[in-house]
Amino acid sequence: MHIEMICTGEEVLSGQIVDTNAAWVAQRLLDTGLEFHSRITVGDRMDDLVAAFSNRAGRADVVLVNGGLGPTIDDLSSEAMAIAMGAELVLHQGWLKTMTDWFEKNGRVMPDSNIKQAMLPAGAVMIDNPVGTACGFRVLWQGTWFVFTPGVPSELKKMVDDEILPWLVRDFSITSPSQLYRLLTTGRGESALAEQLGQVALPDGVDLGYRASLPYIEIKLMRRGEISEERWLKLIDDIRVALGDSWLGDNVYNVAEACHQLLLEQGKTVVTAESCTGGMVASNLVDIAGSSAYLLGGWVTYSNQAKQQELGVGANTLAEYGAVSMQVAVEMAQGALQKLDSDIAISITGIAGPDGGTEDKPVGTVAFALAHRGGYVAQILRVGTKRHGRDGIRKLSATVALDMIRRHLRDEPLLADYGFFKRIDSNQG
Amino acid sequence: MHIEMICTGEEVLSGQIVDTNAAWVAQRLLDTGLEFHSRITVGDRMDDLVAAFSNRAGRADVVLVNGGLGPTIDDLSSEAMAIAMGAELVLHQGWLKTMTDWFEKNGRVMPDSNIKQAMLPAGAVMIDNPVGTACGFRVLWQGTWFVFTPGVPSELKKMVDDEILPWLVRDFSITSPSQLYRLLTTGRGESALAEQLGQVALPDGVDLGYRASLPYIEIKLMRRGEISEERWLKLIDDIRVALGDSWLGDNVYNVAEACHQLLLEQGKTVVTAESCTGGMVASNLVDIAGSSAYLLGGWVTYSNQAKQQELGVGANTLAEYGAVSMQVAVEMAQGALQKLDSDIAISITGIAGPDGGTEDKPVGTVAFALAHRGGYVAQILRVGTKRHGRDGIRKLSATVALDMIRRHLRDEPLLADYGFFKRIDSNQG
Repeated sequence: MHIEMICTGEEVLSGQIVDTNAAWVAQRLLDTGLEFHSRITVGDRMDDLVAAFSNRAGRADVVLVNGGLGPTIDDLSSEAMAIAMGAELVLHQGWLKTMTDWFEKNGRVMPDSNIKQAMLPAGAVMIDNPVGTACGFRVLWQGTWFVFTPGVPSELKKMVDDEILPWLVRDFSITSPSQLYRLLTTGRGESALAEQLGQVALPDGVDLGYRASLPYIEIKLMRRGEISEERWLKLIDDIRVALGDSWLGDNVYNVAEACHQLLLEQGKTVVTAESCTGGMVASNLVDIAGSSAYLLGGWVTYSNQAKQQELGVGANTLAEYGAVSMQVAVEMAQGALQKLDSDIAISITGIAGPDGGTEDKPVGTVAFALAHRGGYVAQILRVGTKRHGRDGIRKLSATVALDMIRRHLRDEPLLADYGFFKRIDSNQG
Repeated sequence: MHIEMICTGEEVLSGQIVDTNAAWVAQRLLDTGLEFHSRITVGDRMDDLVAAFSNRAGRADVVLVNGGLGPTIDDLSSEAMAIAMGAELVLHQGWLKTMTDWFEKNGRVMPDSNIKQAMLPAGAVMIDNPVGTACGFRVLWQGTWFVFTPGVPSELKKMVDDEILPWLVRDFSITSPSQLYRLLTTGRGESALAEQLGQVALPDGVDLGYRASLPYIEIKLMRRGEISEERWLKLIDDIRVALGDSWLGDNVYNVAEACHQLLLEQGKTVVTAESCTGGMVASNLVDIAGSSAYLLGGWVTYSNQAKQQELGVGANTLAEYGAVSMQVAVEMAQGALQKLDSDIAISITGIAGPDGGTEDKPVGTVAFALAHRGGYVAQILRVGTKRHGRDGIRKLSATVALDMIRRHLRDEPLLADYGFFKRIDSNQG
């Protein structure tokens, strides 16, 4: 099935906003077994829109159009389609009523500018939008179904999930994967991962894809139904084994999410003691609703004064080993653990750059320690170089720190072999 | 000048990665006075690439192509262009030597797969890439200049800035803006801002644009040179005044950056005491190299236990007013201020949602306090609703918190009228 996308809007074409809608729709379609053939992005000019629609008519089975359905003067998608088709715009009474009712319910009068949102090209099928005033619609022209969707991400997503994907699957007899399984990894690049996974036989009926978003690469398995449950589960197992220490979790979007589930299950508490990550680790946990069940608190001991005063790090330790050392990391973690009587404490102290590096400890040198009621594990790694940038090094460090917590909760060795990150030293007590 | 872009790569088309290159190039061109007419995104199939190139030849003055210049089997841009043109691929000796030398210098032998990166369509002009093995190139076909650029963002950016933009400006006599001025805002949407700015007369020779990236909207002024310095400065002033309390700073990308400069200038120190923002505020400051000059430390007092134990918040205060209250925010800030003897302390305690809201204090209710050596200012706002999501409410809260610091440093009223955010109550002491 030949499906294309047309993204409209000056703000998208000119890069004022990054086109996350296009990426989301493409991924969603891929999950359903559909691949976009191509994508065109145009601005808000009537000529360009009419030309784009006319150009693709008869060349694709489906063209998904995004944007231009609002009530303002820049919103031209309906009208452009009518012009391209040589059709009239017809008032959709049902949608007009839906909009008027909604305004009334909110104690307002519908502005006249919204009326155009109920004007659809003759012959169009209205697509419901329960969370906005821009209804979608689809219309068949020259053998091509043009499907119009709103630009607001939340409205687009709901319409695609609730209305458009089911219609596509049904009317075009798409064999969607009956199951989608995601494995999250870090520490190795796509080619290295592909090499590792090369050893695993991929049976017919399963497709494999990669999605990269620093610091992770997500591996997607799409099951198309022709394999047994037993074979499917074995495949997932084999892949997990092949991924080795790069594997972070199944069907989670980040390592904090992986920790979240384990922390809730085990009823354990956690505190954070951060220096260069500056609050990022705590923030990643607070990102997840329900983290108050286990996150007692955290420190950002950015200065040596704060490390000593707040977490009891020894002046001698700092003087002898330096702020970026396993010894200081251990004292930070133990200090945090004791202060709030937590089950687990994680500490990070490193050099995010671009300044601060020395020959002995270049930018990207980061020390970690996980302390718990029974002892501690510490390590000092090169998580990156200047090339990764300050933000990159902090993100990678936060990932390692959270992975140490994850491994501790799973009773696995905390010192992993990631590939990217070089261990300089380690310690336990 | 009619310029278009062709983005290549399965990972971009399928949404595995979001196309940030396209947005960056478009914005960079806009800054130079050039607007893209349209953008096409295709995958890695030879047919599609050849068709895309053939399709646009003769229709545009310049087509900028991104991606497909690597050494792997999926990298087809050079070959596809040669096929489209009906030309031979010719070995560029100079580039081959550059690559071989680079590998040698790094103690390696160049793999044969890299040789294709020196094979350019006959007639192409090589474009240098000092930070990668993929040289760019431009070639004229049917009156259209096709310009090929690498997909790696850092390499693309350097090539565009150092080679391609200067060539475009020169060869196509582009009148670039002689100056670009950016004003950062928060708290009002684009239409509200446009209304406020409607009162300001925009002289000929100046273009105005908006760039939205939650929680900010950036206003871009592009000076095209035909106005006096005096008129230009007055315009900037008028706009700043018209923006009112939405204005955060000039030529900064976020409010933390605005604070950074002021903190360095004034030699003041700061500490953070966060609950719902969970470390985000501290992290925003640590984002900026050099923040160790003023950030002494921070707390993430996520539990009431941590608030009392670490910052000395009174059990009575918590019992009487609740964790999300100005009173608790004030005690958090004062506790933090005293512990590390800081000049400034900022605290945030609120309900990020989706759970935790009550009729009295719904999701999005957030209390802030800024304490300094001379007193404090506190406020409790509705920064958003459930609709903004947990992440959105935390980001908006962090923005308000940092803006309080910024205003304090500028000796301006801390209680601003943003538009979006509704103040419920305020207090000072």
